[in-house]
Amino acid sequence: MSHTVEILSVGTELLLGNIVNSDAQALSRELSGLGLNVLYHSVVGDNPGRLRAAVELARTRADVIVTTGGLGPTCDDLTKQVLAECFGRRLVFHPECAEAIRAYFARMGKEMTDNNLQQACLPEGCDILDNAWGTAPGCAFEAGGTYVVMLPGPPSECLPMFLERAAPWLARLSEGVIRSRTLRVFGLGESAVEALLRDRMNRLSNPTLAPYAKEGEVELRVTAKADTPEAADALIAPVEAEVRALLGDLVYGADVSGLEQVVLEGARARGLTLGTAESCTGGLIAKRLTDVPGAASAFKGGVVSYHCEVKAGTLGVSQALLDEQGPVCAGVAEQMARGARRVLGCGLAVSATGVAGPDPDDRGNPVGLVYTALAAPDGCWVKKLNLASPGARRDRIRTLAANHALDMARRWLAGLDPAGRDVQRGWTD
Amino acid sequence: MSHTVEILSVGTELLLGNIVNSDAQALSRELSGLGLNVLYHSVVGDNPGRLRAAVELARTRADVIVTTGGLGPTCDDLTKQVLAECFGRRLVFHPECAEAIRAYFARMGKEMTDNNLQQACLPEGCDILDNAWGTAPGCAFEAGGTYVVMLPGPPSECLPMFLERAAPWLARLSEGVIRSRTLRVFGLGESAVEALLRDRMNRLSNPTLAPYAKEGEVELRVTAKADTPEAADALIAPVEAEVRALLGDLVYGADVSGLEQVVLEGARARGLTLGTAESCTGGLIAKRLTDVPGAASAFKGGVVSYHCEVKAGTLGVSQALLDEQGPVCAGVAEQMARGARRVLGCGLAVSATGVAGPDPDDRGNPVGLVYTALAAPDGCWVKKLNLASPGARRDRIRTLAANHALDMARRWLAGLDPAGRDVQRGWTD
Repeated sequence: MSHTVEILSVGTELLLGNIVNSDAQALSRELSGLGLNVLYHSVVGDNPGRLRAAVELARTRADVIVTTGGLGPTCDDLTKQVLAECFGRRLVFHPECAEAIRAYFARMGKEMTDNNLQQACLPEGCDILDNAWGTAPGCAFEAGGTYVVMLPGPPSECLPMFLERAAPWLARLSEGVIRSRTLRVFGLGESAVEALLRDRMNRLSNPTLAPYAKEGEVELRVTAKADTPEAADALIAPVEAEVRALLGDLVYGADVSGLEQVVLEGARARGLTLGTAESCTGGLIAKRLTDVPGAASAFKGGVVSYHCEVKAGTLGVSQALLDEQGPVCAGVAEQMARGARRVLGCGLAVSATGVAGPDPDDRGNPVGLVYTALAAPDGCWVKKLNLASPGARRDRIRTLAANHALDMARRWLAGLDPAGRDVQRGWTD
Repeated sequence: MSHTVEILSVGTELLLGNIVNSDAQALSRELSGLGLNVLYHSVVGDNPGRLRAAVELARTRADVIVTTGGLGPTCDDLTKQVLAECFGRRLVFHPECAEAIRAYFARMGKEMTDNNLQQACLPEGCDILDNAWGTAPGCAFEAGGTYVVMLPGPPSECLPMFLERAAPWLARLSEGVIRSRTLRVFGLGESAVEALLRDRMNRLSNPTLAPYAKEGEVELRVTAKADTPEAADALIAPVEAEVRALLGDLVYGADVSGLEQVVLEGARARGLTLGTAESCTGGLIAKRLTDVPGAASAFKGGVVSYHCEVKAGTLGVSQALLDEQGPVCAGVAEQMARGARRVLGCGLAVSATGVAGPDPDDRGNPVGLVYTALAAPDGCWVKKLNLASPGARRDRIRTLAANHALDMARRWLAGLDPAGRDVQRGWTD
C-alpha cells in the first residue's frame, strides 16, 4: 500500500505572497518519484497555534509529514518546537550539530552570532539530516506510525537536503529501490510528445513514464521500482531505448541540467571553444552557458550587439546589409555568428537576432520573428523562427530563441544537421 | 476587524509537482494589499471527497475562501460542483455565460466542443465573474457569513480575473479604497532595514509599512486605506518621505521593476548610452538591461569577456596586468569598463570580474570576491566586494555582482558617489 504525504510549509512570507512555494513543487515531484502519494500541500504562517492545528490535522490525513521552513535562528522559527510538542518529544541540544554550524561559518569567513546555536536543538531521538548547503540542520523521526521529516525553507537548501538526506531516510517506506532517469527533449511541444507516447504511457506501470513541460522544452521522466538499483536500471533501459527510437535526435540528453550543459560538454570533448553574438537575447545565451560551474573550460566569451553600430563595429557585420535589410534577417544572423567566431577566436559561435517585443520593429517585422545562426569550422547555418504564440511574451520569446541557438550547437557537436528539420537550411559553405 | 482568507487550490498537477502554485503567491500579495489577512494556503487534488473536506475545514477557519482551478470543461474539473454542494446551492445553466464562451472561441478562430458549455453552469444566485482571458467564468457568492470566490487555474487568467473582477467584488469587505507604493532599496540587508524601521513600522497602522526581501535587495511597501484615492495617497506621502529621510540614497526608486529600469531611464534622461563588460556575471547584466522592453533606447551592447584572451583582445585590458595580478583585481575591472566604453562607443559602461564559484580561482581568490567598475565621461570608479555568505551560491553571487554594477551607474546618474559608502574608492581621474 502506498504511503500518503502532506507537505506543510511554514512561513508568513508565503502567505504575504513575498515568495512562491517552489519547495512544495520540488518536493512533490521528488516524493512522487519515490512512489509516495502527495495528497495535500498546506501553508501556515509563523504562528504556533495555527501550526499546531495544522500538524494535528496532517497526522489524521497523511502518514508522512514533510515540513519546510522555520528551522532558522530567529524567534519566528518555531517548526521544531511545535512539531516536537505535537509528537511528545523534548528538544535536545546536539553538540555535533553546533560544531557543524560553527564550521560552516568558519568556512564562509563570517562571524557567528550565538542565536545560530539554537539550530542545534532538535527533537530527542531523531535522525539528524546534516545541512551541507546552509546552517540549519533538518531532522526526521517516526512517531506512532507517522513519519516526520523537517527541511529548511530556502530552496537552495531544501531540495539538496531532500535528495541527499531525506530521500535515503524515506527509502524505508518503499520496498526495494526507486530509480529514475530524465530524458530531455527539444523541438517538440508537450502535447505532441504526449500524443506520440500516450498509449505507451498508459500501458506502463513499472517503470512509469511521465512528461513535464519546461520552458520551451519537455522532460520525460522514467521511474522504476525494483529490489536492487541494477534491476531498476534494467527496467528503465528498454523504455529509454523505445523513447529514443520514437523521438530520435530530439532527445538531447539524459539527467542533464539543460542544453547549455550538453553544449559545453560536447565542445569540451571535441576540444573546441564557444562564443556568442546576441541581439534580441541580449546576453541570455552567454548567461545560461555561464550558469554552469566550470563553463570557462569551453566558453570564451560573447558580444551583445544590441545596436547596429556594435553589430558593424565590433562584429564586422556589413553596414550595407544592415542598411538594406535591417538587423533582423538571415544574413545578419550569419555575419554575427561568423564575426563572433573571428573576433573571439573560438571554434563555434551561435547568434540570435530578432524581435522580442512587445512591439514589432521599425521595419514592421512581427514580434517573434527570430533568426539564429551557428558558425562552425565547416560552415554556417541559419534558422528562421516564428516564436509568437498566444501568451508568448518577451521573456518567453527570448528563452526560446536562446534554446534554438544552443540546440544548433548541440546538433552540430552530435554530428547532426545543425538546423534540424522543418526549418530553413542555408548559407553552408 | 480584518477578514481572514484561505486560498484553496485544486489540481492534481500541483501535487505531482508538475507546476508551481504561482496563483497562491499572486493572490496572496493582492489580497494582503486589500487589507485582507491570508492565513492559509491549501492544495488538494481533483478528488471530490478530499475537496469537500478541505472546504468544510476552510469555512471553520477563514471567512473568505478563494479557490483556484477546477473550473474547466473536463470531467476532473469539479470545484463548482463541490463548492455549490457544500454551501447548499444548485448549479444552474447561465445562457449569457454560454454566449460568452461561444464568442471566445469564435474570436480565437477555434472549434468549440460541447463540453465547454458545462462551464456555463454556476451556483444559483452567484455573481458571475466574466472571463475575458479564457473560457471558464469565475463566480462569487456569500453564504452564511462566508465569502466564496472561484477563479480559474491558469496564471494568465487567474491574476487578471482577480484584479479586474474579484477585487472589486471583495471591495465590500474593506471600507474605502486601498493604495500602495513600493520603495526599492539597494545596499542594505533586510534585517538592517527592518532594524532601522522597526519602531516606526510597529507604530503604524494606516498606512502600514512592510519590508520584503528580494534577491539582493529590499522592497518596502506602504499601504494606505482611505475613503478616496487622494486621501490614501496623502497618507502614504509622509511615510515615504520619512523612509527616504532615513535611508537616503539607498532608496533607488518607487514602483519600478528594478535597478535596470532606473539605470535605463536615468541614461535616457541624460542622453547617454550604456554598455557592459562582464566576466563572472557572464552576460547577466546585459540580459537584465534587455529584459526591459524598449532597452534599445539607451543600451548599446556589451562584451562578455570570460577568458583573459577576450579581456585583452576585445576590451584592450593590459596583458601585463592580467599576467601579474590575474583577471580578478581592481585594475582589470577598471580597464574592462573603460575598454567597453571605448569599444562600444557608449557614454557609461559597467563591468564585473570575480569568483562566482563553486571553487576558488587558480590564484586562490575566494568565492565571492568580485570587483565592479563604472567608466563615465568624468572618470572611473571601482568597488571591491565580498559577496560570500551562508547559502550564497554561484547564482546569488552573480545576481549580487550585477546589482552592484548597475547600482554604480544608478548612483552616478543621480549625481551621487558611484562607489557609495563603505567600499573602496579609487581610480578617479
